[in-house]
Amino acid sequence: MSTASLPQALPEHRTVRVDHDDLIAFTAQVFADRGLPPARADRAAHALCHGDLTGPRSHGLANLTRLYLPLLDEGRADPSAEHRTVTDLGAAVLLDARGALGLWSASEAVELAAERAGRHGIGLVSVRGATHLGCAGYHALRAVEHGMVGLVAANCGRQRIARPPGGAVAMLGTNPLSVAAPAGEHPPFLLDMSTTAAPTGRIRQAAREGRTLPEGLLCDDGGAPVTDPGAFDAGRAHLMWLGGEDGRYKGFGLGLAVEVLAALLPGAGTGPHPEALAAGGGPSGRDDDIGFLVAALAPDALRESFDSDAEQMFGALLDCPPTDPAEPVRYPGWHEYHRAQERRREGVPLEASLYAELADLAAWSGLRFPAPVEHGAGEGL
Amino acid sequence: MSTASLPQALPEHRTVRVDHDDLIAFTAQVFADRGLPPARADRAAHALCHGDLTGPRSHGLANLTRLYLPLLDEGRADPSAEHRTVTDLGAAVLLDARGALGLWSASEAVELAAERAGRHGIGLVSVRGATHLGCAGYHALRAVEHGMVGLVAANCGRQRIARPPGGAVAMLGTNPLSVAAPAGEHPPFLLDMSTTAAPTGRIRQAAREGRTLPEGLLCDDGGAPVTDPGAFDAGRAHLMWLGGEDGRYKGFGLGLAVEVLAALLPGAGTGPHPEALAAGGGPSGRDDDIGFLVAALAPDALRESFDSDAEQMFGALLDCPPTDPAEPVRYPGWHEYHRAQERRREGVPLEASLYAELADLAAWSGLRFPAPVEHGAGEGL
Repeated sequence: MSTASLPQALPEHRTVRVDHDDLIAFTAQVFADRGLPPARADRAAHALCHGDLTGPRSHGLANLTRLYLPLLDEGRADPSAEHRTVTDLGAAVLLDARGALGLWSASEAVELAAERAGRHGIGLVSVRGATHLGCAGYHALRAVEHGMVGLVAANCGRQRIARPPGGAVAMLGTNPLSVAAPAGEHPPFLLDMSTTAAPTGRIRQAAREGRTLPEGLLCDDGGAPVTDPGAFDAGRAHLMWLGGEDGRYKGFGLGLAVEVLAALLPGAGTGPHPEALAAGGGPSGRDDDIGFLVAALAPDALRESFDSDAEQMFGALLDCPPTDPAEPVRYPGWHEYHRAQERRREGVPLEASLYAELADLAAWSGLRFPAPVEHGAGEGL
Repeated sequence: MSTASLPQALPEHRTVRVDHDDLIAFTAQVFADRGLPPARADRAAHALCHGDLTGPRSHGLANLTRLYLPLLDEGRADPSAEHRTVTDLGAAVLLDARGALGLWSASEAVELAAERAGRHGIGLVSVRGATHLGCAGYHALRAVEHGMVGLVAANCGRQRIARPPGGAVAMLGTNPLSVAAPAGEHPPFLLDMSTTAAPTGRIRQAAREGRTLPEGLLCDDGGAPVTDPGAFDAGRAHLMWLGGEDGRYKGFGLGLAVEVLAALLPGAGTGPHPEALAAGGGPSGRDDDIGFLVAALAPDALRESFDSDAEQMFGALLDCPPTDPAEPVRYPGWHEYHRAQERRREGVPLEASLYAELADLAAWSGLRFPAPVEHGAGEGL
């Protein structure tokens, strides 16, 4: 790793590639400097960089200075908190994360769930007192490393940004949900989604890049479509639910299902709460006391031939004739897997502005930031 | 119960109300005549009539002569099959339903899951060899009767009607997903949804009623919106995924997540399979060897005060100020609960054409069909 500054001539939205291992090492060092034990810092770094490695950059390193360092610096996350076991019934465990960094807590919870699933067929770890976990899919994929199906969902604590259909007050967060499964020799299946039509990170990423949004993600007070991403943080637009006008009760229902499973079950903070009613129509509450649902299901404990069946099933999907020969049929997780392979080899693309921001952070922290491995021309990110 | 024929003057789309208990007794008798043991016939009748009782009529008695009796009469469902336990790990059980009627199997599976959850905090019952379960929500609600959270999902066996995004061949079914939870003194939370934008029953119901569909449910080969529900069974339109154009990978991903959890896990028939590739672009395969995922989560085994927290959370949602004072904010399950209350009291509305069909079935079977309790003028069904 060598100190590097951004070539001045690079336009802001160009990308710069940085070696993956160097990026992890840098990020882990930033976390370690904030008091995370080394193994925990390394795990949190992998979880955070997963967004940049696989695609949803809105959940990647762009959040280091915007979300995670402020959480630690304000004392809202505890770098060295140990999880407390509230209840242990064997197959099901209730943990209090006590404000540990969610980037690490969620992976710990998946490891515990997988260990229990190996014995009981299913392992459920219900977590309260947590902080943000980053990409839910990163953690769900850890179950796949054990040959299991992983399920990870999180609410946003008491942070309220999405309104119930027909409601004038924000009541819920973006409530992500992820399911990952082995697919034999094919890339793992990975669904990783917000239950709102888009996560806030996608909206803000578009605002930073000066892009217009497609219709269906934001609407104004009267329900009319909004395509200017800047309108969201200006309070002139709200997140819509997955499903659009006709299907919004499904998206809202999925968001509420996550609230029940991830937060109500363990007794974490919830968006819908009498205190929300005292707030105005805009966002309210803080993303403290987040709840997770983490589950691992162990197919091999239940039956034989799961792996070959999974390989055959996902293989059949990949073999589905496409309507456009130039666009083969893929399933969620396929592109992310191949993107990660390529980026581990060729470097992880960071927007020039993010590169500069992280280089500044490095300088300010007395750390060295990795030099670019290549000046990428972007790749249609 | 008294024999009744439809008053001749009643227009076809008017509704006729029939006493709920009489309707259950009639339906149970029809099933018992096909060889279902009495308690099983009664359970299946409740599951089937739930659609008419709570609202999604597309999953109710309209399917008796279209789906369930043909399954029994063709020997594709076995009226008296006993479930076989393939694996029992305590918290997780794998069952082979051996072709028993899914309307009954799914409720049995929920009872077993709840029993296991009481001991282990979570109970998972993974089922293969099943047939259609009707409304997934009916079964998920049974967990709520035990004070638990219920989760029920099903694939459609080898029946393929929905195409992967960009695919030219049908690969998946409508793959319903349901989550139900206690809400204290408020009606239970109940999400009950297809992962396609609409279930086939809704499309066919609209076709029977001569209604046009909103955009976003069906599209043609080129992806253009189709609003004529008749185009679906004519092979000129396909089901779209929940989420519309921008979010279709989420809907498809949810459909696949259900396929993994409900069918791949227990080793049931799956939509994506090499045999699908031999079929043309239209629907293929049969809805045999369906798989279920049934889970119960026992909050009271994990922590205290779940019920009061749930009541407070759902109460806050109901108290959310509405944008239109005439349309109070509700959550999924609220309307269904109140509709069921009213219909248990006032009678279950059946379309006149369905009433006539069931009266014919009764006459043909030597049974008596309940007389109308009222000639309803419809209620905006």
